[in-house]
Amino acid sequence: MSYFKEHIEKMTGYIPGEQPRDGVYTKLNTNENPYPPSQHVLEAIRNSLNETLRLYPDPVAMAARLKIAEVLKTKPERVMAGNGSDDLLSIIVRSFAGPGDKIVFPYPSYMLYKTLSELQNGAACMIDFTEDYILPEDFIVKGAKVSFIANPNSPSGTMISPREISRLASEIDGVLVIDEAYADFSDENCLPLVERHDNVLLLRTLSKSYSLAGIRFGFCVAQESLIQGMMKVKDSYNVDRLGIVAAVAAMEDQKTMMEHVEKIIKTREYLTKALQGMGFFIYPSHANFVLARCMKGVSAQNLYNELKKRKILVRYFNIRRLDDCLRITIGTQEEIDLLIKNLKDLLIAGAGNIH
Amino acid sequence: MSYFKEHIEKMTGYIPGEQPRDGVYTKLNTNENPYPPSQHVLEAIRNSLNETLRLYPDPVAMAARLKIAEVLKTKPERVMAGNGSDDLLSIIVRSFAGPGDKIVFPYPSYMLYKTLSELQNGAACMIDFTEDYILPEDFIVKGAKVSFIANPNSPSGTMISPREISRLASEIDGVLVIDEAYADFSDENCLPLVERHDNVLLLRTLSKSYSLAGIRFGFCVAQESLIQGMMKVKDSYNVDRLGIVAAVAAMEDQKTMMEHVEKIIKTREYLTKALQGMGFFIYPSHANFVLARCMKGVSAQNLYNELKKRKILVRYFNIRRLDDCLRITIGTQEEIDLLIKNLKDLLIAGAGNIH
Repeated sequence: MSYFKEHIEKMTGYIPGEQPRDGVYTKLNTNENPYPPSQHVLEAIRNSLNETLRLYPDPVAMAARLKIAEVLKTKPERVMAGNGSDDLLSIIVRSFAGPGDKIVFPYPSYMLYKTLSELQNGAACMIDFTEDYILPEDFIVKGAKVSFIANPNSPSGTMISPREISRLASEIDGVLVIDEAYADFSDENCLPLVERHDNVLLLRTLSKSYSLAGIRFGFCVAQESLIQGMMKVKDSYNVDRLGIVAAVAAMEDQKTMMEHVEKIIKTREYLTKALQGMGFFIYPSHANFVLARCMKGVSAQNLYNELKKRKILVRYFNIRRLDDCLRITIGTQEEIDLLIKNLKDLLIAGAGNIH
Repeated sequence: MSYFKEHIEKMTGYIPGEQPRDGVYTKLNTNENPYPPSQHVLEAIRNSLNETLRLYPDPVAMAARLKIAEVLKTKPERVMAGNGSDDLLSIIVRSFAGPGDKIVFPYPSYMLYKTLSELQNGAACMIDFTEDYILPEDFIVKGAKVSFIANPNSPSGTMISPREISRLASEIDGVLVIDEAYADFSDENCLPLVERHDNVLLLRTLSKSYSLAGIRFGFCVAQESLIQGMMKVKDSYNVDRLGIVAAVAAMEDQKTMMEHVEKIIKTREYLTKALQGMGFFIYPSHANFVLARCMKGVSAQNLYNELKKRKILVRYFNIRRLDDCLRITIGTQEEIDLLIKNLKDLLIAGAGNIH
């Protein structure tokens, strides 16, 4: 006999990317930033390591919301802090969708949307992207309670224009979550849509562009009425003291973030050309990774395994539409040169060939 | 028109205790530890402030689970880490109860249990403690999916014997959550029940006895099958890197924790006698706070307000059975002397009198 709810019992759960504990890998698999966090952030945390840790954090993380609002030119009442974007995604599903409610998301995209739908016992509506990673018209599902778009999308790196997303927001039923985890690596973003649409929830994170995946801080930007209601659903103290301090300091140091982003974009273009030169098809990336589709006769899974033997971790998804691809996080120039050299060697040796 | 689910729309949400931002208060209202965290913890965090913060934390917080298992003489597979106990409480409700399912908890107790039931659209079964804070027989609700017991209980500080809780665990339907946030301040605890009952979920936190409320780290001890299933419900990276480091270091330094606990227990006895001397009734406390019931003719709310004017914060609950009480967190000896002096002055001046 199981004490679990049936829908929990039968689900498999989300499998995050490998986090090797031995630390000897060139880690290009979970879209972490290869550059260190801002010294200003580390110093701010260091200065907070004192007896105040015995006290609970501010339940609404006001210091972080004020600073984020200032940088994004919005109001703190329109900002909500989360223990990473994942915390906010979970809060959103619990706020707006119940068992049997339609939860819409594209495929292939961030697989957590499906997991969150299963956790809530919702009716998951998984809509295939076109081959070009455009959203088909049937993404607009009648009676949908929550629709998710990762933009730029993972694992494709592709992007839907803010104009098109604005049209979707107008036509869609329920709320539209625009997950902008990778927006800092793109020329465009959907922040202006928050003003225009009372059903838009925009998510950002410090995990990627700010090099703070280890800290867990994400935030949601939306109109006041949405933020107010979601505040009831979050844990009382969902963001800890050091996370709030880190967020304020990270937002204060836009310069370091942007320098790292610029380097990553440069390396992304460099890697793209190199991979194209080897014969891979690269989806146009607006993120800190590229999705590389293998040429005919070459197995992505073999390449993944062979790279892993050489202590280079990339991401391989053994699922429909992705099983011939590798998703490669943009590392430092040195890491990417190492990857390119190994990939070339493997291809020349025929180690990736389908037998 | 609201996008929110109706049960979310109509709920009020949990109101945590006041966290004044100006910081000039003697803060005896949210059961924080008056003593600083262990130097070993601060140093461990300081040593982790480096470029590794760019990487995601270990999704299963294995380092912390290993150390907790070692100290508690159990297995890491029986331990799960949470972003504070609140995170684990939320995971438990979502794992074992759905809309309309019975969720049982005593009254008066930690009000978050009711909030979590409302969030899940569950059927909250709030069972009154007896006047002596014993659980009545009707706490065993037929068909219950989740039953909560805070032990020691907040805000009463009272305790139910492990033997009685073991009996409840045998007779109860569904899982029994034993929330031991305050167990380190008591002579007894229910840890041995995890071995005996496959439906027991025991919760501990670093927020109180370890002086780390600002860090957000709680853990659940339960049999493997329960832990495994709950792992599917938690956020992928629910505990951050610094939280894991803090937890390991905190568990390593039992000595500092126990020294602080001993001091707090001494001050608790001291405060109890002083309050009894003034005429308050004090519920027998096994926690780091006391619940003081006012004598006839004296208003707890007036005392709360007057103390607040004097920059001393205690907790006042304007609800049934608690509206004649103050919950006072045990502070340092100096803080408690200041409280006693002010209370005496107020009582002599008749400032607490009901008009």
